[in-house]
Amino acid sequence: MRKLANEELPRLTVNEFKTADKIPIIIVLDNVRSLNNVGSVFRTADAFRLEAIYLCGITGKPPDREIQKTALGATETVNWKYFNSTIDALNDLKQSNYTVYAVEQADGAIMLNDVLIDMNQKSAIVFGNEIKGVGQDIVSASDAVIEIPQIGTKHSLNIAVSVGIVVWELFKKAKK
Amino acid sequence: MRKLANEELPRLTVNEFKTADKIPIIIVLDNVRSLNNVGSVFRTADAFRLEAIYLCGITGKPPDREIQKTALGATETVNWKYFNSTIDALNDLKQSNYTVYAVEQADGAIMLNDVLIDMNQKSAIVFGNEIKGVGQDIVSASDAVIEIPQIGTKHSLNIAVSVGIVVWELFKKAKK
Repeated sequence: MRKLANEELPRLTVNEFKTADKIPIIIVLDNVRSLNNVGSVFRTADAFRLEAIYLCGITGKPPDREIQKTALGATETVNWKYFNSTIDALNDLKQSNYTVYAVEQADGAIMLNDVLIDMNQKSAIVFGNEIKGVGQDIVSASDAVIEIPQIGTKHSLNIAVSVGIVVWELFKKAKK
Repeated sequence: MRKLANEELPRLTVNEFKTADKIPIIIVLDNVRSLNNVGSVFRTADAFRLEAIYLCGITGKPPDREIQKTALGATETVNWKYFNSTIDALNDLKQSNYTVYAVEQADGAIMLNDVLIDMNQKSAIVFGNEIKGVGQDIVSASDAVIEIPQIGTKHSLNIAVSVGIVVWELFKKAKK
């Protein structure tokens, strides 16, 4: 099996990306501390051609050297907006008819493998701070909570990894 | 919806993890440069209770401050082994009847959503260097190649994110 060279991959140009249909998902980062994590989320959002990333509170925003080092150009393609507080982002999303899901371990959470999202509807998925997770106020203001089932000792995936897992699961459903 | 406190999560102790049944998957890291990525892969392997991680070539190994900072204790639970070269790891795995999958963009790759792996069999999944990906010699020596379909401008997910996505997909199949 021969590895494909970069020029053999069906990669979009920046302009093609900008005008292409997007998967109707907005990623909301609730006070994410690590700029590497933010950069990595930009790459994931580029890979699966998501609508946008909403950066909230202490979450860093472009232009930023650390973010760009990890994002590898994806800050030039993926739409993003900054909000002083995550609750402002949620109010904005609800006014635009997005259904808001928080990714957390919570009472009444839906396990990711059981999630049924109508991908013709617009969804926003909130991921939280590396230590504190998604704030309780944001969990309470969300329409539902999604949990990634885990069976180890920590129950604490890296936040950029969690974004990858949840987005992949929804991306597959959107493609069907 | 109320967030669960850490003591409410059904987390295993280190000893329980050591003796618990594992998902029969070994992650092979082929010359991964970033110690943060290695630490993050340890956390993912803990979360989904994988068999082991094989660290190869320039890939860092515990004890290491940077790895442990990201792994948050998962280096104490997840089994790992170091190999000077990735091909040594592959030979070891094949002698133990593991089927070896490389994650790459290659001619004849199976898209992740189409992968059918018998989770009663033992599988090893190889992930490559941040810049070069999995080496062509390792791709050639693998039993099959798995590709994560991507529709953006980069076709280059972070390696820890790729591990999360592939492991999640196989974990779901193993649980069924």
